[in-house]
Amino acid sequence: TEVKKIAVIAGDGIGPEVVAEAEKVLKRTEEVFGYRFETEHALFGGIAIDEKGTPLPQETLEICQRADAVLLGAVGGPKWDNNPKELRPETGLLGIRKALGLFSNLRPAVVFDCLKDASTLKPEVLEGTDLMVVRELTGGIYFGEKFRRETENGQEAVDTCAYNVNEVERIVRQAFEIAQKRRKKLASVDKANVLETSRLWREVVNRVAPEYPDVELEHVLVDNCAMQLLRRPASFDVIVTENMFGDILSDEAAMLTGSIGMLSSASLGEGSFGLYEPVHGSAPDIAGQNLANPIATILSVALMFRLTFGYADAADAIEAAVAEVLDAGHRTGDIAVDKSKAIGTKEMGDLIVAAI
Amino acid sequence: TEVKKIAVIAGDGIGPEVVAEAEKVLKRTEEVFGYRFETEHALFGGIAIDEKGTPLPQETLEICQRADAVLLGAVGGPKWDNNPKELRPETGLLGIRKALGLFSNLRPAVVFDCLKDASTLKPEVLEGTDLMVVRELTGGIYFGEKFRRETENGQEAVDTCAYNVNEVERIVRQAFEIAQKRRKKLASVDKANVLETSRLWREVVNRVAPEYPDVELEHVLVDNCAMQLLRRPASFDVIVTENMFGDILSDEAAMLTGSIGMLSSASLGEGSFGLYEPVHGSAPDIAGQNLANPIATILSVALMFRLTFGYADAADAIEAAVAEVLDAGHRTGDIAVDKSKAIGTKEMGDLIVAAI
Ligand SMILES: CC(C)[C@H](C(=O)O)[C@@H](O)C(=O)O
Ligand SMILES: CC(C)[C@H](C(=O)O)[C@@H](O)C(=O)O
Repeated sequence: TEVKKIAVIAGDGIGPEVVAEAEKVLKRTEEVFGYRFETEHALFGGIAIDEKGTPLPQETLEICQRADAVLLGAVGGPKWDNNPKELRPETGLLGIRKALGLFSNLRPAVVFDCLKDASTLKPEVLEGTDLMVVRELTGGIYFGEKFRRETENGQEAVDTCAYNVNEVERIVRQAFEIAQKRRKKLASVDKANVLETSRLWREVVNRVAPEYPDVELEHVLVDNCAMQLLRRPASFDVIVTENMFGDILSDEAAMLTGSIGMLSSASLGEGSFGLYEPVHGSAPDIAGQNLANPIATILSVALMFRLTFGYADAADAIEAAVAEVLDAGHRTGDIAVDKSKAIGTKEMGDLIVAAI
Repeated sequence: TEVKKIAVIAGDGIGPEVVAEAEKVLKRTEEVFGYRFETEHALFGGIAIDEKGTPLPQETLEICQRADAVLLGAVGGPKWDNNPKELRPETGLLGIRKALGLFSNLRPAVVFDCLKDASTLKPEVLEGTDLMVVRELTGGIYFGEKFRRETENGQEAVDTCAYNVNEVERIVRQAFEIAQKRRKKLASVDKANVLETSRLWREVVNRVAPEYPDVELEHVLVDNCAMQLLRRPASFDVIVTENMFGDILSDEAAMLTGSIGMLSSASLGEGSFGLYEPVHGSAPDIAGQNLANPIATILSVALMFRLTFGYADAADAIEAAVAEVLDAGHRTGDIAVDKSKAIGTKEMGDLIVAAI
């Protein structure tokens, strides 16, 4: 079997703990399915700032570039929050996305049965919610020119939001293709009644749409989408949108499932390369105490198997193992109803490994 | 008594119907409280496009400029949705905000007891929710330079987001002052980890904050705010944010109350002048059928009395009348549980008038 190279970025806070469990899962799938993985660890985020003086060391980038996929734990924490821009973990995140050409961020928002009650939405509204936000990740106002200048009204700050046809077309086509493999509904979200970039966005969507006649397309204004996600979450299948709107809507969508501690995400570029990470953050308050829930990171491995390696059998097995362990009633503290019966990060990882 | 001049913009769809009921309320408060109003009607939005060839005729602007306040019904509809930019109702909205210097949009999101069940959120989560979004309304990416240019990657569209210190400071100070009159909590929402305008925003907030020592301030990133609104809506008091984020978050906040058909809003500038309108849209599907709920527009009159005229007694009386009519079980179709018992727009207006 071909050896797949995985760059492993543990990161900050609970990152190292949850990634350690995901690595056990990798090992287990080698044994069970005969796949072969080679992992290479790299420093990134806060820990890289502390040890190398930059959130994204050149060496880390090279390790990622020679890998087939990247597994990321979590980055950031209050320790670095007041640093100057070039010494902040987020700057590393934006840098790695751009450097690796990860123009697409897939954020599935699904409801785990055992976490239904954790949602603040009524169960009958949530029923059947299973959506995917496809967020453009390397363009828009995140990466446009930024500067300050003096005016008669005091200092002025400027951000520039730009999109060209190619940038829009590649993400929109990807979203249509994803919709074709799902429930065949695509909501393209923009603010075409105000923004020029949104008008370009909508033009491109309308131009390519006829090539996907099996996909039902709707255009939704971003403010309306923020409302409709609350009113009729189950009616959405795939949502495609630009970087800033995607940041906001994917978090709203994740939160309404009530399952945010269990959600994984993929950032993809051209070809099969991808970066996989849990949606949750680095949770510094519970770091190093064997309290974190490793499931989102373990499910990120399943997503990697599916999208980058095409190992559907192993992906299925991981997802089934997670379901089995949850069905048996095992819970980490974040998702336990009876906190006194909660198990630790390692125990959860071991149970899932054993179920594969 | 001084005569107050009110410019009345009925607009499109259900606009004329709901505004007619609000005008009955104006008349009633003249009788009961001795106030005196002079109303002048003006064309705006779709109807102005049809009749005058522009969404914001010069005459309409002049009527507004010589008034003390503006009452707006609703504008827009599918009829004008595919028009070129200068012939769209939204362009009129942006134009009137800028021309009248309405830099601040207040969007109270409260839960009406009788509509609690209409929310998709669990009642226990919603309990106590009473927040106000203060949205900057004449700056940011809405009003920055917009253009297209050719690049090697196809056409490129550009929007510019700019804020100067003065623009940020006036809205932030207003939000602090509003918080002082409420529960004394202010959440300033930005994306300071990515945007230069947000970093300027945060600097200004932090600089003026010491002048409002009685207000508890938190900075919240916009993606996190979209989540926290779902998780802990009752914990917010005043939220202040820039134009685009405010557009999204105020709609999310309104929807989660379940009371969107009942919410009013105010757009303010320097001094006491203000434009008041319901949060809901023009609902063309039910227009002209005596089906629309006039309460949000009637409550917009109460907001006008409070914020522009300082007529707290009449504002209280209107709000009490609305509560009384609802408590007595009267409902328009949108908020009726038993639709067969729903009353019409005019009947609802008459009942409220009678209760003042
Ligand atoms: C940390 C921040 C720069 C980042 C973003 O806004 O993209 C985060 O919110 C995310 O969604 O991955
Ligand atoms: C119609 C549109 C231009 C407008 C806006 O985005 O400001 C509307 O959504 C609003 O919130 O008043």
